[in-house]
Amino acid sequence: MNAPALKQAPLREHTRILGIGAFRPDVIVTNEDVCQWIDSSDEWIRQRTGIVTRHRADRDTSVIDMAEAAARSALENAGIEASQLGAVLVSTVTHPYATPSAAAQLTDRLGATPAPAYDISAACAGYCYGIAQADAMVHAGTAEYVLVVGVEKLSDFIDNADRTISFLLGDGAGAVVIGPADSAGIGPSVWGSDGSKHQAIRMSHSLLDIRDAELASVAAVGGTLDDAPKASWPTMRQDGQTVFRWAVWEMAKVAQRALDEAGVTADDLAAFVPHQANIRIIDEMVKQLKLPEHVEVARDIVDAGNTSAASIPLAMHRMLQENPSLSGGLALQIGFGAGLVFGAQVIVLP
Amino acid sequence: MNAPALKQAPLREHTRILGIGAFRPDVIVTNEDVCQWIDSSDEWIRQRTGIVTRHRADRDTSVIDMAEAAARSALENAGIEASQLGAVLVSTVTHPYATPSAAAQLTDRLGATPAPAYDISAACAGYCYGIAQADAMVHAGTAEYVLVVGVEKLSDFIDNADRTISFLLGDGAGAVVIGPADSAGIGPSVWGSDGSKHQAIRMSHSLLDIRDAELASVAAVGGTLDDAPKASWPTMRQDGQTVFRWAVWEMAKVAQRALDEAGVTADDLAAFVPHQANIRIIDEMVKQLKLPEHVEVARDIVDAGNTSAASIPLAMHRMLQENPSLSGGLALQIGFGAGLVFGAQVIVLP
Repeated sequence: MNAPALKQAPLREHTRILGIGAFRPDVIVTNEDVCQWIDSSDEWIRQRTGIVTRHRADRDTSVIDMAEAAARSALENAGIEASQLGAVLVSTVTHPYATPSAAAQLTDRLGATPAPAYDISAACAGYCYGIAQADAMVHAGTAEYVLVVGVEKLSDFIDNADRTISFLLGDGAGAVVIGPADSAGIGPSVWGSDGSKHQAIRMSHSLLDIRDAELASVAAVGGTLDDAPKASWPTMRQDGQTVFRWAVWEMAKVAQRALDEAGVTADDLAAFVPHQANIRIIDEMVKQLKLPEHVEVARDIVDAGNTSAASIPLAMHRMLQENPSLSGGLALQIGFGAGLVFGAQVIVLP
Repeated sequence: MNAPALKQAPLREHTRILGIGAFRPDVIVTNEDVCQWIDSSDEWIRQRTGIVTRHRADRDTSVIDMAEAAARSALENAGIEASQLGAVLVSTVTHPYATPSAAAQLTDRLGATPAPAYDISAACAGYCYGIAQADAMVHAGTAEYVLVVGVEKLSDFIDNADRTISFLLGDGAGAVVIGPADSAGIGPSVWGSDGSKHQAIRMSHSLLDIRDAELASVAAVGGTLDDAPKASWPTMRQDGQTVFRWAVWEMAKVAQRALDEAGVTADDLAAFVPHQANIRIIDEMVKQLKLPEHVEVARDIVDAGNTSAASIPLAMHRMLQENPSLSGGLALQIGFGAGLVFGAQVIVLP
């Protein structure tokens, strides 16, 4: 068949981050708190991870609540009204409903209805994945302004007795608004995955194990509840050594490619904002990328722990609050995590 | 600060769907089967929904298994190697792990590593949301070829005794490959949300209710298990009237806007492929859009039930199998569902 010609939206040459916002929940969990649950010490945790405290949300604060606070602050910082948004992306792995998305409710709360709204699952690379999508949508004319939120309530999916990952994790939200620009404000996205390592960061078991235990329990007529298989709440686990080696060896290469594809060098950077997984990974990347002294390095992990999809915008927000003169400079950002997945860009700081 | 200039990927003028694939699982659930669980009849179900059978996956077939089968068939149909993929999107609400994504594992199984991989949550609009993103990424030079999979194992999240939605639902997967083209093959995406209706299609309760019941049970030392609050497996529900009215009144307008923004009329269409939610919604949309007789209308729901994010590519795949001469013609596709969210495009059929 021969189809009549379709019209298209005009393409846009340039995009940038227009504003940034963040939300840090109230509850502070110290290393002393953690040591009630696992056999460790404040000193060991500081040396091995850099973490001193994590912020966690209370029971009544949801992923959507945190996303809303960060989003309002990002919109204000960008000088954009919610009604101008052409899309709302929420990157999260801790919204506790299969459907609907956190993004649809968030969009309504913000007054951004009828903007398209969806959640993405890309773990600790989720913020950089969101930037890649938002950047593409603004270029393609699919949306003019896009809100990207990274938000996690990881404390809902941890086991305090687990010492592979749970004690590292915090809650929080960060958000940015992406829109058209007069010059290039977002370099090419260097992003990817290695699903052969999908077990390196994982849930302890499937949610369906809970359902199956329930079904077995119902079927066990005449038996007792003790006969029914048990399935506890799934929580996060990681093979720390696998993830550490992968992050240290592979992620510096990804970060270097993001610089190369953007046509800049480490000398051109004002800041380096990596995912806040472990201070030793951050320090090793700084070394491998040969970052000069003048490059500000985000070490928000000391205060915030690992907040997955929220960590990069949270760290960037703090850095800009503490050092507003960085605004307009170049930052290299890189996220990496469960999948395994990774994403990096050089961006102009809002 | 003044930043050095960033390079960007060159923009691409045109995109299209290069190939399509599908997977229908083996288990056939008839209306007679359904009437064992709810007080209804084959006649009532046919009259009110159009559904005669649903395909459902067996216990051992996962979302990733179904996605893989559909993806392999789409890649073959497109004549694209997995290694050429620049991104893999899986639209699903039924992958039973918080993390990692289904997409990361799928990408590895297909041999598409290190392509970026992520899942999106946009319910029954998820396929059209995926097309909007893939289209934008190919335009923006973020990826050259993108695999978009819509896949659901809804049978894992239903309650057979529920008569609001569970009896409508089926399992399956559909996939397309999007890439560069010489002329416009995908019209502007008309997409959006109305989160004020987030309760219209929803889970019966939060996954966290399961966790909280477990915690309460552990805390109830000295009590008995009977004292602990119970939380059963969350399953899907809908307010059928709200959804029906919204779909009939609002979605025909969205579909018309997709035609208008693409610069074509109903007369130009070869096919209409709406989300397969209910045959009465489909028939009403056909009437309101005043579709001429020559436009083929997808009614895959009769055989497949409502498969959420998979329904449009499944229906399109069948239509092209049964009527290959439609290839190259224009199709209007529209998805809508939990959020509430919606998305529509006019596309050139692969």
